[in-house]
Amino acid sequence: MSEFSLIYQHFQNATTKHDSTILGIGDDCAISSVPPNSELVSCVDTLVAGRHFPVGTSAYAIGFKAVAVNLSDLASMGATPYAILLGVSLPKELANDTFLAEFMRGVGDICHQFGVELIGGDTTGAPVLTLSVTALGFVPKGLAIKRDGAKVGDVLCVGGQIGLASAALQEILQGKKSPLQSALDLPQPQMALGQALCGYASAMIDISDGLGQDLGHILTASGVGAVIELDKIPTHDELNQLPFEQKYQHIINGGDDYQLLFTISPNKLADFQKNYPNISVYPIGKIMKKAGVQFLQNAQAIDFKITGYQHFL
Amino acid sequence: MSEFSLIYQHFQNATTKHDSTILGIGDDCAISSVPPNSELVSCVDTLVAGRHFPVGTSAYAIGFKAVAVNLSDLASMGATPYAILLGVSLPKELANDTFLAEFMRGVGDICHQFGVELIGGDTTGAPVLTLSVTALGFVPKGLAIKRDGAKVGDVLCVGGQIGLASAALQEILQGKKSPLQSALDLPQPQMALGQALCGYASAMIDISDGLGQDLGHILTASGVGAVIELDKIPTHDELNQLPFEQKYQHIINGGDDYQLLFTISPNKLADFQKNYPNISVYPIGKIMKKAGVQFLQNAQAIDFKITGYQHFL
Repeated sequence: MSEFSLIYQHFQNATTKHDSTILGIGDDCAISSVPPNSELVSCVDTLVAGRHFPVGTSAYAIGFKAVAVNLSDLASMGATPYAILLGVSLPKELANDTFLAEFMRGVGDICHQFGVELIGGDTTGAPVLTLSVTALGFVPKGLAIKRDGAKVGDVLCVGGQIGLASAALQEILQGKKSPLQSALDLPQPQMALGQALCGYASAMIDISDGLGQDLGHILTASGVGAVIELDKIPTHDELNQLPFEQKYQHIINGGDDYQLLFTISPNKLADFQKNYPNISVYPIGKIMKKAGVQFLQNAQAIDFKITGYQHFL
Repeated sequence: MSEFSLIYQHFQNATTKHDSTILGIGDDCAISSVPPNSELVSCVDTLVAGRHFPVGTSAYAIGFKAVAVNLSDLASMGATPYAILLGVSLPKELANDTFLAEFMRGVGDICHQFGVELIGGDTTGAPVLTLSVTALGFVPKGLAIKRDGAKVGDVLCVGGQIGLASAALQEILQGKKSPLQSALDLPQPQMALGQALCGYASAMIDISDGLGQDLGHILTASGVGAVIELDKIPTHDELNQLPFEQKYQHIINGGDDYQLLFTISPNKLADFQKNYPNISVYPIGKIMKKAGVQFLQNAQAIDFKITGYQHFL
């Protein structure tokens, strides 16, 4: 833990304090109390410079995004975020106050936004910047939304616009400026939607590896198939200007959007929309008995290949 | 999570199942229940090849040690281990079945030994092997042993032999075989001792960065000083053959032993020894009012410089 002091000095005044923390950073372990009638949810994600964010990504965005993608995993269970533990492997050229102050400002901003506390960390030297974030959250007993609950007849929905991060990444890798850069750099975990869907959605996942591939995880876990109406998928005007194939490559096979993809029975969807009039959800298809994914475009069957998002190498 | 399948296939049949796990690997997050009247303890440690283990360390030992050093942090709080989340960044030349099978055999063996479940993971490519392990454990409410409770008059104790890993590392870096290699490669988290000391020890830490430096953490957190009787520190015959200065460099400034260092009042120490006749503890000094560390050798004051263990670069 002592090596962590290098980073911690940039965070000490920025960290949110959470009621559940009995002992935070500074001992061998953190100590936390889990709220009554709650379960603990946990996940880990590792991000490597040049692979999960393009060269030239700002230190602020790196810190922000490393935490955001983990909070998104909590959101996809319907959980309330609590804390993160941060493993940082730093190359020598980044072990300086300039980088660390900006990096931790990004970490701090997203933590503040969601009331998340940094309760543990470790810093080491390494040839390339590698970030491993563990996120902890709480969910009311038995109400976590898993991947395996999709039922035939359920409506397939997303919580927002899809394909933006992938379109931005393509432009940036081509050396252009992208009007959608913030979608790639500063993804917003869909916490409010995820929590609101507890008791409504039958299955949920966050879209990190592409709508097509992440839908596949729900379908495989639930033993069902789906039909998607491509023209129902909400996206950004920037993508509507692209040729059809290119547009839907971003939407179906692009990743890094961190919108929620979920299934919900028609009755529960109606209830949800009545009870949460201020939260938008977008029906884009249906769960079917037949395995696999069928695509429709203006009610016509259309071929489209799901390749999945392999990040970039 | 999908990228984790590369490693997970080597672990699927080896992982311990824990009663507290409601949902293990395979969804966006794991879901766990925390036992009643317990608190959650958590920590993260990152290990980088060539820095935290010398080139040539076996894949088995790398997996074993990456988990062991984290379980040791749980032991130093008096916690019972529950689960790990594993972030693995793999260079191309190690992304093969031979390495992964052995690596995960090491992870699996230490997990089995302590009833620990792998509940989450992520694998990415990277130029150098980097492992980030988050360990979760439970401790009875209010009974975790922190660093800040050492009181003037407390006895300073260790739970076993010190300096072995450092002596082994020196020989290995010199290209020799070391009879103490297993102390370096396969450290044993002192779980039973840590848990038994709940309600007895006033402060505790595990020795990862050297007895001198880790004692410093207790003293600083507790606002006290200490006297250490060098000749009372248990060590191995191999070290007794070394010249005085070299021997105590390993013992005071060597790291990676993962023995527990703790403080305890004389009365509680007597009680502990009565109640746990089968657990050995070794008094090596005393907590004093005066800040800093004084060394005695055969009851004579002696100068010895605490430098701390900087791993090797």
